[in-house]
Amino acid sequence: ELRDALLASFGNQSLAGLKVLVSAGPTYEDIDPVRFIGNRSSGRMGFAVAAAAVQAGARVTLIAGPVSLATPAGVAQRIDVRSAAQMHAAVLSAAAQADIYIGAAAVGDYRPLEVSAQKLKKRDGTGLSLQLAENPDILASLSAQTAHPFLVGFAAETHDVASYAQGKLRHKGLDMIAANQVGDGLGFEAADNALTLYWADGMVELPRAAKPELARQLIAQVAERYRAARG
Amino acid sequence: ELRDALLASFGNQSLAGLKVLVSAGPTYEDIDPVRFIGNRSSGRMGFAVAAAAVQAGARVTLIAGPVSLATPAGVAQRIDVRSAAQMHAAVLSAAAQADIYIGAAAVGDYRPLEVSAQKLKKRDGTGLSLQLAENPDILASLSAQTAHPFLVGFAAETHDVASYAQGKLRHKGLDMIAANQVGDGLGFEAADNALTLYWADGMVELPRAAKPELARQLIAQVAERYRAARG
Repeated sequence: ELRDALLASFGNQSLAGLKVLVSAGPTYEDIDPVRFIGNRSSGRMGFAVAAAAVQAGARVTLIAGPVSLATPAGVAQRIDVRSAAQMHAAVLSAAAQADIYIGAAAVGDYRPLEVSAQKLKKRDGTGLSLQLAENPDILASLSAQTAHPFLVGFAAETHDVASYAQGKLRHKGLDMIAANQVGDGLGFEAADNALTLYWADGMVELPRAAKPELARQLIAQVAERYRAARG
Repeated sequence: ELRDALLASFGNQSLAGLKVLVSAGPTYEDIDPVRFIGNRSSGRMGFAVAAAAVQAGARVTLIAGPVSLATPAGVAQRIDVRSAAQMHAAVLSAAAQADIYIGAAAVGDYRPLEVSAQKLKKRDGTGLSLQLAENPDILASLSAQTAHPFLVGFAAETHDVASYAQGKLRHKGLDMIAANQVGDGLGFEAADNALTLYWADGMVELPRAAKPELARQLIAQVAERYRAARG
């Protein structure tokens, strides 16, 4: 109890001396100079994770998609990107220096195969077929490297969250995945979230809470798993 | 000169007694619960137009797509919508009461033909073809009605602005169109704008200025043309 009280008053420096890279927010994939494919990520969960990592003593680099959020106090570096390709390049570059990568961004899976340099004109009365190409997977790219940071992914799903998350953990070679159900006031564009964390031989539920509180709990679990795996 | 000075000090109530309907911002067309097709409109030009119409003495209804902007002081009613179909319905309903409609929203021309109730899963290694259907045109729908408000459209283009704008004026049966070049620090996501106004037998250039100032000039021109056509 004394230890808990001391940790609570002085802060839990569970990531002291570590470099943490966090990606946050959506990506926008341009169709033409005006239109784009986006997603509903507000960036709030990722920004809360970056803030919690700072509080836990880490040196934090934050790579953000198009969001309207202030950089959390104490973040060492913020890099703003727009597209999935830009986020892929920025994360792979910064990951070389990181001990832990937490991929909290909602990276677009697809981009238009061709980006028009001019605004596409509407042709009255006809539909349109938009050809999409798959974007490179950031976590899978990192996982494929011989030396890479401790990898934490997110899985935001509308259904079958647990099975998708555990599949993604194995398939992408992650160290941990944070799964959340989207909808009903949780997840994207919401103040609250609820996460289930999975790793190779364990799991823990983090019940519904405001994103900053949930981020602190997530960071505590990441620190514990990191120390167990690489400490 | 005395008249000008009085108007400047007391405000030019050029729209006193009139009901003005303004649409602003982008529309977002959902692909699934997470992804959508959007556009870069910030809503700032349309919100500035609504504010300028209030200053000119009008009773203003503002219909806004997904933006993060405060309602300008004095706006009588604000209706928030997300998709082009929702904006179409809201504008047509409100237009029955309006003397002037200024369509400053960047309404999506296309929506996904099918909206998935579940988040679409990525199928590794394959592309995707997204089938899009055309959205109903709000200004054309209004113009086709026997009785309709004085209609002001916007044409934001990356090239051939003048010819597209004049074509749109005739084709959609508008009373006035405000054309602007997008890009180079103007138009979408920018603080400044520059407009060229066209009507059946005239035009006027409003040179580059901050959006609130440009909106005041636009409203003055709309009031003059409205009085000439219907006054």
